[in-house]
Amino acid sequence: MHILIIGAAGMVGRKLTSALLKAGQVGGKAIDKLTLTDVIEPAKVDFPGEVTTIASDVSAPGVAAKLIASRPDLVFHLAAIVSGEAEADFDKGYRINMDGMRFLLEAIRQEGLKSPYLPRLVFTSSIAVFGAPFNEPIDDEFLSAPLTSYGTQKAICELLLNDYSRKGFVDGIGIRLPTITIRPGKPNAAASGFFSNILREPLVGQEAVLPVSKDVRHWFASPRAAIGFLIHAAELDTTQLGWRRTLSAPGLSTTVGEEIEALRRVAGDKAVNLIRDVPDQKISSMVAGWPRNFAAKRAEALGFRAEKTFDEIIRIHIEDELGGKIGG
Amino acid sequence: MHILIIGAAGMVGRKLTSALLKAGQVGGKAIDKLTLTDVIEPAKVDFPGEVTTIASDVSAPGVAAKLIASRPDLVFHLAAIVSGEAEADFDKGYRINMDGMRFLLEAIRQEGLKSPYLPRLVFTSSIAVFGAPFNEPIDDEFLSAPLTSYGTQKAICELLLNDYSRKGFVDGIGIRLPTITIRPGKPNAAASGFFSNILREPLVGQEAVLPVSKDVRHWFASPRAAIGFLIHAAELDTTQLGWRRTLSAPGLSTTVGEEIEALRRVAGDKAVNLIRDVPDQKISSMVAGWPRNFAAKRAEALGFRAEKTFDEIIRIHIEDELGGKIGG
Repeated sequence: MHILIIGAAGMVGRKLTSALLKAGQVGGKAIDKLTLTDVIEPAKVDFPGEVTTIASDVSAPGVAAKLIASRPDLVFHLAAIVSGEAEADFDKGYRINMDGMRFLLEAIRQEGLKSPYLPRLVFTSSIAVFGAPFNEPIDDEFLSAPLTSYGTQKAICELLLNDYSRKGFVDGIGIRLPTITIRPGKPNAAASGFFSNILREPLVGQEAVLPVSKDVRHWFASPRAAIGFLIHAAELDTTQLGWRRTLSAPGLSTTVGEEIEALRRVAGDKAVNLIRDVPDQKISSMVAGWPRNFAAKRAEALGFRAEKTFDEIIRIHIEDELGGKIGG
Repeated sequence: MHILIIGAAGMVGRKLTSALLKAGQVGGKAIDKLTLTDVIEPAKVDFPGEVTTIASDVSAPGVAAKLIASRPDLVFHLAAIVSGEAEADFDKGYRINMDGMRFLLEAIRQEGLKSPYLPRLVFTSSIAVFGAPFNEPIDDEFLSAPLTSYGTQKAICELLLNDYSRKGFVDGIGIRLPTITIRPGKPNAAASGFFSNILREPLVGQEAVLPVSKDVRHWFASPRAAIGFLIHAAELDTTQLGWRRTLSAPGLSTTVGEEIEALRRVAGDKAVNLIRDVPDQKISSMVAGWPRNFAAKRAEALGFRAEKTFDEIIRIHIEDELGGKIGG
């Protein structure tokens, strides 16, 4: 089977690539060809089959058609610019996050018009398709009323994915990922970064800043769970989805205070004491508009699984990123 | 005030134009300029102010920018191809129903980037943004999961309208129109046409065909109510909407059997006897996927009003289309 990953250089793309290479198969079919692409060329990987790594921007006209010409059996579309950037650069957000998806879907459709072709397309959507005021928890029939351009673009992609699937042009499935925590790497500028920072930094003996109140609730899953969702989506019998092809993934609804108590249980007071309260009104008011609890019944019934405790999320980070050891 | 109507040659466009000319004002501001456009040139109208009627296709690149260059204060965007055509011609549906809206929104945004410009944009959406299975009734927080390309395109337009409004590029409001009944004119090929045909034709002594069972329920409003929604939308204080800029309009949830009994009350058995049952499985199964009842609480709270009985809907047709007389 030939797999194409668009957005392969990002955190999710790299972890997904590793997981696929480790498994060697998807749904019982051996992986013999892998095409990895992103706006910067993804790192080479060690793989006995054919691997292509190429820099390409799927939001540029013609690029998707070239990628799809080799007829991958399975496509992961992870490429996007993040919420803050899509909000700051309106044109770029629509181009990358919306036109990119449309070009990809059209490339698949046009390829299928030449001769039968119906690849599985796994798309990463986001809980940002939901905007306050919410039902608590948000169920599988709650409207998409995003309060960001990023969320709007993702919601539009979901609609396109449904329609192209319904018309028989692609076998699409979208997954609305919870906020991935603990996100590995350096603290970044994302407004949601603190949810990870306050755990990741203290676990290696570094200070971290908490800009919001401890009673802030949010919706989480580990990077490992997120990769699990995407692979499960690739293997799922999609006839079970009908024409509502995007699912809110399961996750863990937890307050910042509970995050911190989990850190205390796993790494002790020493780690917790590295968190400094530095209230930030701008971040607090943004966070107040974010979804914080879901009843992800459809995804759960279809076998998607997330963590049940924050202790587990922290332990996964220690296993996967810190070689099993708490530093500091 | 300068009003631009895109899609002015259609049934809704013509009735809206007449209603605006009759009122002479919108929200207390006198209409002094009217631009009417459609893919075919709209009919000339008798109006003391400046009127322009032009043939133009807003889904062609550059056309929207030209229309918006004259900076209308109020824009009605009614142009669309219907559900059946959008389903049959995938490319044309996305071009007219989605790209047209995007070009229009972009034209307004680009005009506003030159110097401040924030027109009211009234957009006609559709109950086709909802697809089965439904909650009964469909409330204001139910998801858009369309089962047609037309519904998908309208749902995408709604998302764009919200985001462009939120960003301060346009003052948008969308109205999801119920099925407009009794639709004047000749029977057409639309699958929903029979809801009107079985009343309109018997009222003038003509036979009509009923392709579905009498217990089929659907969601209706008269043409007069629909025009009322659009004018109310043009006059509304949109700050009341937040960033959920599209409303399901109020309507009347009625079965075909109740439609027929209303016809009997208004026009007698003679009219009812002109309806022939000719079951059509294809139409029946399409109709089964259509929404049929709404709790349009937001729109009602904002002062939108529809008919309360089907007798009223029939009487409006007799007044507005038949000069007050039942023929046949």
